[in-house]
Amino acid sequence: MSDERRSLLADKTPFPEGLDDRLRDQLTFLVEVDQLKTVLRQSPLAAADRRENDAEHSWHLAMMVSVLAEHSDRPIDVGHTVQLVLLHDLVEIYAGDTPLYDSAAGDDQQERESAAADELFALLPTDQGRRMRALWDEFEERRTPEAAFAKAMDRLQPLLLNWMARGGTWRTPGVTADDVRARKAVIGEASASLWEAGRRLIDEGEARGWSRSAEPR
Amino acid sequence: MSDERRSLLADKTPFPEGLDDRLRDQLTFLVEVDQLKTVLRQSPLAAADRRENDAEHSWHLAMMVSVLAEHSDRPIDVGHTVQLVLLHDLVEIYAGDTPLYDSAAGDDQQERESAAADELFALLPTDQGRRMRALWDEFEERRTPEAAFAKAMDRLQPLLLNWMARGGTWRTPGVTADDVRARKAVIGEASASLWEAGRRLIDEGEARGWSRSAEPR
Repeated sequence: MSDERRSLLADKTPFPEGLDDRLRDQLTFLVEVDQLKTVLRQSPLAAADRRENDAEHSWHLAMMVSVLAEHSDRPIDVGHTVQLVLLHDLVEIYAGDTPLYDSAAGDDQQERESAAADELFALLPTDQGRRMRALWDEFEERRTPEAAFAKAMDRLQPLLLNWMARGGTWRTPGVTADDVRARKAVIGEASASLWEAGRRLIDEGEARGWSRSAEPR
Repeated sequence: MSDERRSLLADKTPFPEGLDDRLRDQLTFLVEVDQLKTVLRQSPLAAADRRENDAEHSWHLAMMVSVLAEHSDRPIDVGHTVQLVLLHDLVEIYAGDTPLYDSAAGDDQQERESAAADELFALLPTDQGRRMRALWDEFEERRTPEAAFAKAMDRLQPLLLNWMARGGTWRTPGVTADDVRARKAVIGEASASLWEAGRRLIDEGEARGWSRSAEPR
């Protein structure tokens, strides 16, 4: 990270004097994260003809956790899982979105996102920054049942959107139905029934020509 | 409600045969709520030159609950409060957004939204539909500490966005700084410190000419 401080959104209209310091830091962070609404993903919305942004996506995952938690193969704490999905993409404010089927951009993704997490969570009071960082690390490491389920939602949601779009990013040049299956298989680490449903959508999409079948070599 | 069934988003690309019925209902609901991303609010984003939509707004409130919960005057369950904000605007998918400073549209708002809740939550398996409806009723009735805090976030978030926009909807024709104070005072029912900060922003905004001072009669 450079020593130079990044200019923050809150610098554009500084808060007035006289606010409590801790609250000022919290509000500065909460204004900064408004930028999540401007990070575009590849997925097309089901309800409109445009791409989805990270804030909408994060909200959708939280609704999915709330409705689909019963399908987790292991017991999960729903509130904790919701926390994970709400903040899992925050680092993209500084690191940008890395498309699932872009393996080149994936190479330094971890490093870029970790630096972004350092910088973003440092805006918060120290105790809260540490807590958020721990939640983000938990999501990334995918070792707890909650993190596994959160990750499964992160893969299942665009699968639903691609189904609705009759292809969507499944049509990315060079991507085959087998690539889709490989990237989505992580759903099965959290829920056998949801992965069965997900595979059903991928298989049927392939059969209808919405994704490309692997060619014989 | 009319007897005719509303056409659903999931009808556009029906799910394949062979999905479990309960899961199919859950996925139908989860696709339907994609429409929350298309319900526009009056508030301008801080991070881009466009209006905010309900899904982004709901995500932002959830982040605010997570960061600002310590300012609640009464103890609150953070996970439960997050659930309330995540679904509080879902009814607007069918009922539309009612601007805070539009008192005419406010007249039949409750009736329209209640009918929308009946219809939307009926898409879910009965037990889940009842649970969501109870959460929405809890938010609307504002009797629990969690609902009071959720409502406070719902009023504080656009206040932050208006501050960042140096006016925003405070500049709505006919609206005065006193109107803003009156509509925002509900923040004080959940948190004295957040309402003190909110008032500070409104007062300073008025002093800078970002809202209109009441004229002498």
